[in-house]
Amino acid sequence: MSAVEGSARTGSFTTPHGEVETPAFMPVGTLGTVKGVSPEELEELGASMVLANTYHLYLRPGYEIVRELGGLHDFMRWQGPILTDSGGFQVFSLSRTNEIRDEGVEFQSHIDGSRHFFTPEKVVEIQKALGADVVMAFDECPPGGVDRKAAVEANDRTLRWLERGLGRFRELEEEGGHPAQSLFPILQGNVYEDLRLQHLEDVLSLGDWNGMGIGGLSVGEAKEEMWRVLEALEGEIPQEIPRYLMGVGYPDDLLEAVARGCDMFDCVAPTRNARHATVWTLDEGQVNVKAARFARDPKPLDPGCDCYACRKFDRAYLRHLMVAGELLGLRLLSIHNLRFLVRLAEEARARIRDGSFGSWSRGWLERYRGARV
Amino acid sequence: MSAVEGSARTGSFTTPHGEVETPAFMPVGTLGTVKGVSPEELEELGASMVLANTYHLYLRPGYEIVRELGGLHDFMRWQGPILTDSGGFQVFSLSRTNEIRDEGVEFQSHIDGSRHFFTPEKVVEIQKALGADVVMAFDECPPGGVDRKAAVEANDRTLRWLERGLGRFRELEEEGGHPAQSLFPILQGNVYEDLRLQHLEDVLSLGDWNGMGIGGLSVGEAKEEMWRVLEALEGEIPQEIPRYLMGVGYPDDLLEAVARGCDMFDCVAPTRNARHATVWTLDEGQVNVKAARFARDPKPLDPGCDCYACRKFDRAYLRHLMVAGELLGLRLLSIHNLRFLVRLAEEARARIRDGSFGSWSRGWLERYRGARV
Repeated sequence: MSAVEGSARTGSFTTPHGEVETPAFMPVGTLGTVKGVSPEELEELGASMVLANTYHLYLRPGYEIVRELGGLHDFMRWQGPILTDSGGFQVFSLSRTNEIRDEGVEFQSHIDGSRHFFTPEKVVEIQKALGADVVMAFDECPPGGVDRKAAVEANDRTLRWLERGLGRFRELEEEGGHPAQSLFPILQGNVYEDLRLQHLEDVLSLGDWNGMGIGGLSVGEAKEEMWRVLEALEGEIPQEIPRYLMGVGYPDDLLEAVARGCDMFDCVAPTRNARHATVWTLDEGQVNVKAARFARDPKPLDPGCDCYACRKFDRAYLRHLMVAGELLGLRLLSIHNLRFLVRLAEEARARIRDGSFGSWSRGWLERYRGARV
Repeated sequence: MSAVEGSARTGSFTTPHGEVETPAFMPVGTLGTVKGVSPEELEELGASMVLANTYHLYLRPGYEIVRELGGLHDFMRWQGPILTDSGGFQVFSLSRTNEIRDEGVEFQSHIDGSRHFFTPEKVVEIQKALGADVVMAFDECPPGGVDRKAAVEANDRTLRWLERGLGRFRELEEEGGHPAQSLFPILQGNVYEDLRLQHLEDVLSLGDWNGMGIGGLSVGEAKEEMWRVLEALEGEIPQEIPRYLMGVGYPDDLLEAVARGCDMFDCVAPTRNARHATVWTLDEGQVNVKAARFARDPKPLDPGCDCYACRKFDRAYLRHLMVAGELLGLRLLSIHNLRFLVRLAEEARARIRDGSFGSWSRGWLERYRGARV
């Protein structure tokens, strides 16, 4: 890490497709496209790394097709770093799961009901075929607040799966192919601090990791429980590797998590909210663009924002687009929300570097939250 | 006209927002946005003039709001020429029409059923408020092939409405406001050549027009009837003004109509087809991008096309986007289809200029049509 302020850190890590400065927000491109946004727009809004999803790309278009076409970078025409989620979360949350065994998970596609089988080895093979810069290990992710027994079982299985995934990852590395990819383990343990710490110790005993996913948070538990778990983990995860808090976050959650030592973030909210006409602004918090009060408003969405939508269009027009259900509106609001989070991470980096993160983020959160109706 | 080959012509006309070279295809931005496409993308794909619609903008967001925000050019951030359709066609085709009287048309909004009243004066006022470069007169447009009596009545009413619209247009011109807008009349007469010629004579007796809409075609009649009507009108409309064939067309129709002396075109097909995954290509005609044969196809949509989608992406990826229902796919296919027509008009201009339009368009149509399954 190049600078630290309290538990907040800034630094960078290297991937085969370039450097990623942290804290970083990674736009989610589930199916090999960040919904509504072109590769050039992603670059312009400052995205350094994007996410894609193993489960989704395995079902559509199929990882063999993506490999045949040169891997995911060539397929989606994005030459920056890509992290692929392992599909563990989706297998449990999206598909009809038929059976979880130690061997792997049998599941039915949420699209056509077809049957498939994922093993820890298989999801590594898929991600290697996609050419991901960061490959995530296969994990079992139970909902927030399951009982200890279920949490222990999920931890144990996730650990056994990690060992197998790592073995397959090393075999494939030796066989060649896309170079220098990293495998990140995913920490589980639900809301139980002792289970979290035990799992961390077990995971660390398996290898020297380049980075670490923190999973099983933001899955239904209370916010305070998430902060408590992050605070417990903060001092224990090796300081020199990036920590990826999976599925977080909203702007305020991102700042709270940076303050607790997290470095990488992803969330579908920027594009999903955009599709529901919801945008983030610093002085008015989260607002719905369809609100009648915007009908004649000649101001940009967020006067402090430098995104294409804010530089080019006014609220009255954006409201009109969303009320009329126009495609351009979805794109513009997505660009704004993505830029809002990417810029928040950029500013967090600068503030940590000059030692003003604590006071700045407190002020920012007050402004943002104070504005909420 | 700067060059003529047979009945095909090329030239240009001037608007307050710039020159338009003809033949020209005008992308349709019904609600003040060409569906899925940004102003920069419109410019990049070579659009010189875009369309918007009086009926739609009157209902949403309301023309007073657009005027307040500086007119349609400022509202949608498009500084090129804009033509607004009068809403005559939409009042009859989209809304629940309650009563057509000589005074005007009472109709119910297709959105919320609210009641409204359009007169020829009112639609001119709305279009002046929007700041259109070309204002279209209010017309009655019966479906293709109605009986003579209905066609005569529609002609007569359209003529009386034109006189009143022109009067209001001149009053507003004198009052100032947006300068040098043009009012185009709309020729009706359905499939009856003698009624078409009579209506033309009547329309010409009312004023010196800067251009002329040809309406009531491509509204259900056979293609041959459309060509017959255009051939009858061709020699009779003053040669020096542009002729706008409303609602046409598909690529082959555009070429056929250019050969019959038409200069300006609009059609929702490029963006609507894109939303149904249908694109135009020279060598394969109209194709559906979702076709299984594209799943591993590394070629651009149309190898001869210079649009952003064809320069940047391959068929396999575009198919994937459309199969998965991704927003980016709609945008890319829209850009391609729009560019296809804009470029076809560009090439027609060049070919008319060098005298090769006849042979070139025959060859083009054979290639394009030969490819159809």
